[in-house]
Order: sequence, then structure tokens, then C-alpha cells
Amino acid sequence: MTSRLPSAGFSITIRASVTSDSSAIGRLTTCVGESGAIVTALDVVDSDHVSVIVDITCDTADSGHADQVVAAINDLEGVQVRKVSDRTFLLHLGGKIEVNPKVSLRNRDELSRAYTPGVARVCLAIAENPADARRLTIKRNTVAVVTDGSAVLGLGNIGPAASLPVMEGKAALFKRFGGVDAWPVVLDTQDTDQIVEIVRAIAPAYGGINLEDIAAPRCFEIEARLRDLLDIPVFHDDQHGTAICVLAALTNALRVVGKRMSDVKVVVSGAGAAGTAIMKLLLRQGVGDVIAYDRRGALHRKMEDLSPSWQWLADNTNRDGYEGDLPGALRGADVFIGVSAPNLLTGDDIAAMAEDAIVFALANPDPEVDPREARKHAKVVATGRSDQPNQINNVLAFPGVFRGMLDAHAEEFTEEMALAAATAIADVVGEEKLNPSVIVPSVFDARVAPAVAAAVRAAAPKR
Amino acid sequence: MTSRLPSAGFSITIRASVTSDSSAIGRLTTCVGESGAIVTALDVVDSDHVSVIVDITCDTADSGHADQVVAAINDLEGVQVRKVSDRTFLLHLGGKIEVNPKVSLRNRDELSRAYTPGVARVCLAIAENPADARRLTIKRNTVAVVTDGSAVLGLGNIGPAASLPVMEGKAALFKRFGGVDAWPVVLDTQDTDQIVEIVRAIAPAYGGINLEDIAAPRCFEIEARLRDLLDIPVFHDDQHGTAICVLAALTNALRVVGKRMSDVKVVVSGAGAAGTAIMKLLLRQGVGDVIAYDRRGALHRKMEDLSPSWQWLADNTNRDGYEGDLPGALRGADVFIGVSAPNLLTGDDIAAMAEDAIVFALANPDPEVDPREARKHAKVVATGRSDQPNQINNVLAFPGVFRGMLDAHAEEFTEEMALAAATAIADVVGEEKLNPSVIVPSVFDARVAPAVAAAVRAAAPKR
Repeated sequence: MTSRLPSAGFSITIRASVTSDSSAIGRLTTCVGESGAIVTALDVVDSDHVSVIVDITCDTADSGHADQVVAAINDLEGVQVRKVSDRTFLLHLGGKIEVNPKVSLRNRDELSRAYTPGVARVCLAIAENPADARRLTIKRNTVAVVTDGSAVLGLGNIGPAASLPVMEGKAALFKRFGGVDAWPVVLDTQDTDQIVEIVRAIAPAYGGINLEDIAAPRCFEIEARLRDLLDIPVFHDDQHGTAICVLAALTNALRVVGKRMSDVKVVVSGAGAAGTAIMKLLLRQGVGDVIAYDRRGALHRKMEDLSPSWQWLADNTNRDGYEGDLPGALRGADVFIGVSAPNLLTGDDIAAMAEDAIVFALANPDPEVDPREARKHAKVVATGRSDQPNQINNVLAFPGVFRGMLDAHAEEFTEEMALAAATAIADVVGEEKLNPSVIVPSVFDARVAPAVAAAVRAAAPKR
Repeated sequence: MTSRLPSAGFSITIRASVTSDSSAIGRLTTCVGESGAIVTALDVVDSDHVSVIVDITCDTADSGHADQVVAAINDLEGVQVRKVSDRTFLLHLGGKIEVNPKVSLRNRDELSRAYTPGVARVCLAIAENPADARRLTIKRNTVAVVTDGSAVLGLGNIGPAASLPVMEGKAALFKRFGGVDAWPVVLDTQDTDQIVEIVRAIAPAYGGINLEDIAAPRCFEIEARLRDLLDIPVFHDDQHGTAICVLAALTNALRVVGKRMSDVKVVVSGAGAAGTAIMKLLLRQGVGDVIAYDRRGALHRKMEDLSPSWQWLADNTNRDGYEGDLPGALRGADVFIGVSAPNLLTGDDIAAMAEDAIVFALANPDPEVDPREARKHAKVVATGRSDQPNQINNVLAFPGVFRGMLDAHAEEFTEEMALAAATAIADVVGEEKLNPSVIVPSVFDARVAPAVAAAVRAAAPKR
């Protein structure tokens, strides 16, 4: 995907004055189209006898492309660009979430129930019975979205302040899709001990912890230690959310091609947070065999000096001890799952896979293999992109998973919940709708989160 | 105030079945009244030929009193209590605040602007220019309400979980009165170093820190160290919010009695967080003299082994080196300010003060002196109680102070802001409305927060 397509993420609004002759606006929209952008709206803002001021909104491919579009318009005769606004930046002004009272505070009576003196009794009730905090406070419905800003999207280690727009967005998705109140906790430290200690200390206000965009292998230790320390579920979305969605998608892809989980050989490119969690969940689900591929090549038993998570993979995957390159690993494999880097593979590499191959090329925004090439040789192709069929998007999982855990008063997130959630997502598609281009439901399918929540609740220990 | 009055903070709803004779409901309401509770609502829920089921809602004085009322009703002939619900607890179910998206997420276009891929550009803009976080994220309008649960209301060291209902209430007030998004950070640690380190680490998401209900003297060190570490304002409401409101009230009280700040002698009972901040602000405003009274008596220069904050008070107050008891200190004093403990003083103690005495007895819920007794001898009496005239309530200050600091992009809270805020609150009352029973505006006076915000903004360094 070296040539990106225009998308709403790069939508701009250009205010321009054009001459009032009847063809001027037509020249403008034609120019935008010829520049490779897509016009999505045209509004007349003002006019007089000689000129018209219009706002033309269009999707562009990226910032450089947007500049080209503006320059092309400015070069048109009789057209002058007045102002360019970036709709994405406008949307983010002032932040994307807010905190609202759920109680009315119109008069003294209401004030004295919600705050002093009435609140004192509620405090004392919780002091006497700490479990009441899950009933009488925001802990009932609230999740912390915790990051240290060390592995944000594909942008890398951009730090806490720059990660905040992502965490706010995540919080917005939590409410929109799961009815969960989520709050961004962006930490100005990348020290494992400090992160663990801080999350432990802030935990009383939360019913769950969602770790987000924390670099591997630090993320594994943080998660493991917090699970030991806390009596609320700890979920690392980059690991478990991705693993649930991949398992859901693979479940349906196998239904499409008519293969069984226990028979397939899977190659996973990328043994970081996501890849490791995907492989663990696939093994738990009884997959035939897995080869893990990362910057040291295929992980195998004879390797030395591996981190604990890679050692685990070396011990539990690659049954035949394959030591060659990634294209070699793919020969005859049934499934490729990429959570790594762009453009590692060609169409020929995919052609060498087993018949009815399944390719999940999830590197974002540019997949491991151009999905148009992959589709020529594989039966089912999925990506992380919203402009391609079969988008594997974590928003299918995390809102429903936390909805279910909060409703169950769960004290931990378990593999049973992950398996149940994956099955629930897969089953939403339904036998009659299933086909190579529809292996996962739309993120806007309103049935997904309730189905996931119900499955997770059912999988939680009864309390 | 040993006999408390019924209040909405202790409102209960009693569901009872009564016989259907015409006087039964009357006997019920009479019984509630004779038990000392106040009926605020009566609803018929159901009825048949022989009985009526009613919900009777009434304000009681405290939990014990509520039990007495219920018992008295149960003793009535033909009346049977079915259920008692506590309206305060009902209000707190599930917590009092929620997190809502400010952006629409209805379709893929909106999702790709608010989240990936569009959000990546916003992240990069902040990574390149960190100051943009104040424009493009929740930092613009968001305050952390931080506590360790060590000095919550008058309840003492009840810990983080039990303090959460107060912090949620505070957050609700922040939005209701100041349009500020505030979030509770309740910490499961009471170690000064850890608290400082945690607040430093979580600060990137916030435009201000409101410390709340942290015990003295730890609160002084935490505040001082955070002020040094952070480039956002740090405000300890128990100190600065109280000091601003007391200075506002005293400014108007002195207008009522026609005395000047520089001429009056003030006795302050309680040299903890609130008392210390009050005295510092009064001295900054040029008060005549102050005597600080705490469990070691009147603080004076000859004392040894004082904490840093008490040493400062000993050095800067009590000009004449008074060493006697509290009633002795009051003799001839113009102003008494109590932020300490109930029932320390009698009417006679107040009678020994100077003519046109001013008494602020702010211990909650039971003041240092019964305000009814105090009013016999003092010209102006104020308390922290909502059922008495002249309630000195921090909600007059903190919403507007933070509104102003956020709008000014202030990097610190200053004494100039405190003085400006106090003047703004005092001036809202207006010369023509001022009298001994009206020295502060109502907390519901919509002019207060905007006036305070404007004053604070004007007092902030220009940026």
C-alpha cells in the first residue's frame, strides 16, 4: 500500500473566493478531483456581484497531499484560497471527552445529598465495608486507560502528552460502544516499577485497568505484576484485545475455507505484545502449529539469550524447528498473521502458501503485503485498515469485554473470557452472511458489544 | 449545636401500609412531625379497600434519628413499615459523575477523525510542540482532584476508597459551578514522596491540580514540592479555597461593622491546613494582628520544637507574645475564626470580645460556639452550615479560581489570585445588600464563579 487512498482522517476544508462566472465552481471541484482528493461537501459562504466564497471539503491522502491540493487550487485562474482548516484538528480542539455530573445540583437539598453533609454517611458505609465502593461510587463503571506513551499507534515513543489524543479517543470509544466510563492516565515515566506502583495506587477509583500502547517487553512485566497486586481486571488491549479479534476473525475464516483449527499451520510475523498474545490464545484454542517470526528470525528451541516471553514462544511453537526466512516459513502454511511492519511480503510469497490460504496483514497503516496482491492468491484477506474489507479492529472487543467484566464485578481478566469473547464476535456474523469478504462484523454493528459482554459475564467466576 | 436539625442530607423515604380509614395518613404525618422529622413529600403508591400504601419522605437529623422515626411509625396502630430507603444512598448508586465523548462517533468518517488514522497527526503535532496539548487535548479544561484519604471532611483518615464519594461530589461541583472537567484521583498511599511522584507522573493530562483532604503537615510539603515540579497550578482547597472564602467574608463583615483590616485583632483557633492558609492570607492583606491557637495553646516566639509551618506562624503572629488560653486570647479581640473543633467557646467568651465582634465558627457540622449563643453578643456570625445564615462554603471559590487559571493557561496559583478572588466574591454581595446576615453570596448565585474567574484571569501573568 505505498499509494495511500484519501480518507476522512485527512479531511480539509478550503475556503476560496472564485469569480462569479457559471463555470468557476465546476473548475474548482474538477481541480480537486484531478489532484486525487475526494470532494465531500461544498458550501457557499458568501457572494457578491463579482465573486463567490465557497468552503470545499475534501478527503486527502496525507498532509503532503493536502498541501498539493491547496497549491493546485491556488494556481487556478480566478481562484484565491483564503483559509485552509483541517477538520481533524478542529475536532480535537479542547479535547474529546468531558466529565459530567450524573446528579442534579440545583438547590441546597440536592447539594446536601450529593456533597456535605449527606455524603459523609456514604463515605462511612464504604469505610466499614470496602466492597460497597463497587456499588456507591464510579468504581462500578469506570476503567483507567493507562499508557506511558512508549509505543503509540505506529508512531513509537512519543511520550505521555502526545499520546493523550489517542487515550481520549479510546475513552470516547469505551463509552460509545460499551457504556463504560473510561479515563486517560498518561504517565510521565517509563520505569516499570514506577508504573506498577502508580497504577496500584490509583486503582481504588477504578473497576478495571486497560493498559494501552506500552512497549514490549516492559508491558508483559507491568501486566503480570499488576494482576498479582490488584483485585480488579488488568487488560492490555494491544495484547488481549488484538488476540481476541484475531481469533474471532480466524474462527470465521476457517469456517469459510472449511479447515479445522487443529489442522492449520500459522505463521505470525511480529512477536511483540500483539503477536505474543495472539499466539498464546491460538495455542490455547488448539491450533495445529505456529511459527513466530521476529527480527531474530523464526523463534526456535535452539536459540539462546531470549527474553522470557520469547523463550516461552520458542518452547511452545515451531514444532519442527524451522530456522529459515519468513517467505520460507510461509511455504505450505495455511495462515499468515502479520502484526509487524509494512511490505515484508510479495504476492509470490502468498502464492506459495497452502491452498485456500488466509492472510491477516495487520500492520497499520501499511500492511505486511499489499492486500490487492494478497487477494490474488489467498482465499481470505484481512487488514487493520478501514478502507478494505475485513477490518480487524480492537473496538470489536474491548468495550464489550470491559462491559462484561464490570457487570460481573470480575476481579481478573481470564483466558476463558478471551475465548468466549472471540466466539461471541465470530458468531455475530452468522452462517448465512459469512463469506471471504465478511469474516468479522462491522464495528458499528450494535449487536457486537452486548454479545461480547454477555459472553464475558458468563465466563466470569460467579460472585 | 448539640441538637442537630433535620436536613436533606439525612432524608429518608418510608414505605408503609396504613389502614384505609380517613384519619390514618394524618396520624402518620403527625407521628413523623412529633418525632422531630420534617415531612417533605407524601405519595400514595397503591391501595385497595382496606389499606393504602404510601411513601412518606422526610428530613431527619442523623441516622439514629431516622431509626427513631421509623420505630415510632411502626408503633402506630394500623401502620406497618414495608421498606425504608435512604435518598442519599440512592443518589450515590453507581457514582455521581460520568465520562462522555464530546465528539460524534456515528460512522467511519467520524471514527477516523477522532481515532485512527486521523488522531495520529494530532499526536505528532503535540510531540513537536508540547504546548499544543493545552489546545488539542482535555488538558485545556481538566483538573485532578487528588487525595490520599487522610483527612476527609470531619471523618479523619478513612482512606482512598471511602473518600471517593467526596471527590466525585467535588468533581460534580467543579462542572456545575465552573464548567471545569475534574477527575478524582484517590491514592492508596500516604507517603509524601510517593504522592509527589504520582501526581508529577499523571500531570500531563491535567491543566491544574486540586489537592483535597490531605492531612497537615504532609499537605504543606506535598503542595510545595509539586509547585516546584509542575508547570500547572497546584491548589490545596482546604488551605487556599478556605482562605479565599474567609477573607471574602471578613472583608464584608468589616464593611458591616465599619472597622479596617489594619486595625483588627484576629484570633484563629486551629493552625492546621485551613487555619495556616487563612492567617497567611490575612497577614498578606495587612491585618492588624493574629493569634494562632492550637493544641499546644497560643503559638508564640518562645516555643520550641515547632514544625516548619507552626514556626512560621510563631514568627509572624502574636505580636505581644500572648501565652494564655483561648478565652483569654478572645478578650478584646475583634474577630474570632474557628477551623478546629466543636463547642470550644461559650456565649460569655464571645461577650468578652471587642464591641461589634465578628465570629466565624467554621468547624463542621458542629461549630466552635453555638451560633445562636454567639449571635447574642457578636455583630456578625458565620458558620460552615447550610442551615444558618452566612454559610462560608468553598464552592464560592474553587470553581471560579480554576476556571480563571485554566482560561489564563496559568502555570501557578499565586497569592495575587487569592486576593483577587476574595475581593471578587465579597463584591458580588453589593453595598446595598450587605448586612450582618448577608456577608457572602449564596453558593447558587450565578454571578460568583464568572466574577472570580475574571478576577483570577486578570491577576494571572500575561501569557
